[in-house]
Amino acid sequence: MTVTGGSLGREGAERQELTVVKIAHLAGVSPPTVSRVINGKTGVALSTRQRVEAVLREHGYRRRESSPSIAILELVFHALESLWALEIIRGVEQVAREQGLAVVLTEMQGRLTPGKAWTEQVLARRPTGVIAVFSELTVQQQSQLATRSIPLVVLDPTGEPLHETPSVGATNWSGGMAATRHLLDLGHRRVAMLGGPVQWPCCRARLDGYRAAMDAAGVPVDPDLVRVSTLYVEGGLHDGGELLRLPDPPTAIFCANDLQAFGVYEAARRAGVRIPADLSVVGFDDLPFTRWAGPPMTTVRQPLVQMGATAARLILSLANGEPSDQHRVELATTLVVRESTAPPSQV
Amino acid sequence: MTVTGGSLGREGAERQELTVVKIAHLAGVSPPTVSRVINGKTGVALSTRQRVEAVLREHGYRRRESSPSIAILELVFHALESLWALEIIRGVEQVAREQGLAVVLTEMQGRLTPGKAWTEQVLARRPTGVIAVFSELTVQQQSQLATRSIPLVVLDPTGEPLHETPSVGATNWSGGMAATRHLLDLGHRRVAMLGGPVQWPCCRARLDGYRAAMDAAGVPVDPDLVRVSTLYVEGGLHDGGELLRLPDPPTAIFCANDLQAFGVYEAARRAGVRIPADLSVVGFDDLPFTRWAGPPMTTVRQPLVQMGATAARLILSLANGEPSDQHRVELATTLVVRESTAPPSQV
Repeated sequence: MTVTGGSLGREGAERQELTVVKIAHLAGVSPPTVSRVINGKTGVALSTRQRVEAVLREHGYRRRESSPSIAILELVFHALESLWALEIIRGVEQVAREQGLAVVLTEMQGRLTPGKAWTEQVLARRPTGVIAVFSELTVQQQSQLATRSIPLVVLDPTGEPLHETPSVGATNWSGGMAATRHLLDLGHRRVAMLGGPVQWPCCRARLDGYRAAMDAAGVPVDPDLVRVSTLYVEGGLHDGGELLRLPDPPTAIFCANDLQAFGVYEAARRAGVRIPADLSVVGFDDLPFTRWAGPPMTTVRQPLVQMGATAARLILSLANGEPSDQHRVELATTLVVRESTAPPSQV
Repeated sequence: MTVTGGSLGREGAERQELTVVKIAHLAGVSPPTVSRVINGKTGVALSTRQRVEAVLREHGYRRRESSPSIAILELVFHALESLWALEIIRGVEQVAREQGLAVVLTEMQGRLTPGKAWTEQVLARRPTGVIAVFSELTVQQQSQLATRSIPLVVLDPTGEPLHETPSVGATNWSGGMAATRHLLDLGHRRVAMLGGPVQWPCCRARLDGYRAAMDAAGVPVDPDLVRVSTLYVEGGLHDGGELLRLPDPPTAIFCANDLQAFGVYEAARRAGVRIPADLSVVGFDDLPFTRWAGPPMTTVRQPLVQMGATAARLILSLANGEPSDQHRVELATTLVVRESTAPPSQV
């Protein structure tokens, strides 16, 4: 009986076999069925698979070390729609290349949770680790990886990850605070915030940073000036347009990301509002194109390449069994002041 | 003796063994050494490896079909620096996902030819195929893939690929022609071209399209107005600035890509030249950000997502042994007119 294919040594295969036999006994299935489940093969009925998975979980099964012929790092994105993604890919790829790992890239086309097909493919590929960007793996998916000793690192998680899942992000709260304080220091008082979906921790933190800066300056937050929008240009265009049409419009808008800020640029252009003479705009991310916008955009820089590299290094140290003392790494954000912000015009 | 690892069936292994023994005899080495070379393993002296490679090439060796446990599509980029790359990745990834292939991404950090380490890793991964974007594989690398029956498709080749290497691109010449004709139709006569490195066929074709449109309109090309620059913002900033400082500057600049055009935007801003009132600018690619530039950019659209998808489909049909009647696929470019072009101001 082959348990995990040809890459296991003889001794490893024998030790493995005992465990598989025991699991099979506990789950009331045949050993080959257990092997199929462990190795992510198809052809096992859902109920059987679930029974085996339950036993694996219950007994804390961990597949023993083996060396697959291809060392793979899985990188999964909810969407590949912006330079934001490309910067992260570059960071992951740099570290992977140094370590001789192949980066396998998956896009979920906007879905936040990967489907069953993805899970099966990943288990079959037996990667060194999985980096999930802006995605949410189900508890079952997380446990399927854990029972195969495949480490998981989440980058900018969209939900609350299981307590033990390590994650990498940036100091979103501090970034939101710095952006808002910059606008307040310029003399703005009608400061609006275009937030992203607040159920996502990174967006919530940026909004909280905005509120904290306003509170610290003793400037009341006008509820009319706080909007939640999608993190795309279209969201900024729509909600930015609404803000500009208010009877008492804001003199400054802080956006949860650069794409939204580009949308606000377009809304301002359509409304005949000049940036920065009539309206100051701050973005978040510092995508490479922001400096070539008209006018060059003031924004909060996230070190995206370093975030990707950090996630990859975290995977490697987890895969090497090194104890991790940090389960949440936050890299520093920095405010980059360009030409989309200025003191409010005197009315 | 294990020839290719555990994934070959018994019958396949036996047939393979005979061939390997014969090659070993011809090359004067042991069969395991031949296996190591075929499977991209290390630990074979360079001179031995070269001798074995020569026999493989000479006898038209093709590794027999086997089914590696992981179906991989290799995607290699010279650099991951722009949304240009991300669009191509998305196209490749879409097709790969539909077909259950894992996309392994490699960046060469600006080098055009992958190194030896890359070749060895790829041979060891035994991919379904390789897509090389804006890269140049050596004749030896191409032949190493061919002897392993690994199809290669080149996207926007930077050099003249071996005659039989299929390639995918866009109608660069027609795009250059359309952009230039648009400027001529608006009434411009001092039309400059910021070209990319002309040894790259895609850049040469865009420049030739520019010249063809000028010739067709009976407008002589002023050699001072034709520049060759890097395909980055910095190139457009530098050479665009020089063009604007000429005693008789151009009233319109057609750039070989959008990044250059962003550089020209910045050069114009620094020189106090208004777009489009004083200067018309046309880019090439239609990256997602061009529509949010100040002003929104007129550009030639390349269907980058479709180009990636086409390359991936071509790999799949080659891997399936389907005869390919097309060795060069060119997808259509289209001119997208926005607000960076206008008739020249009357002086």
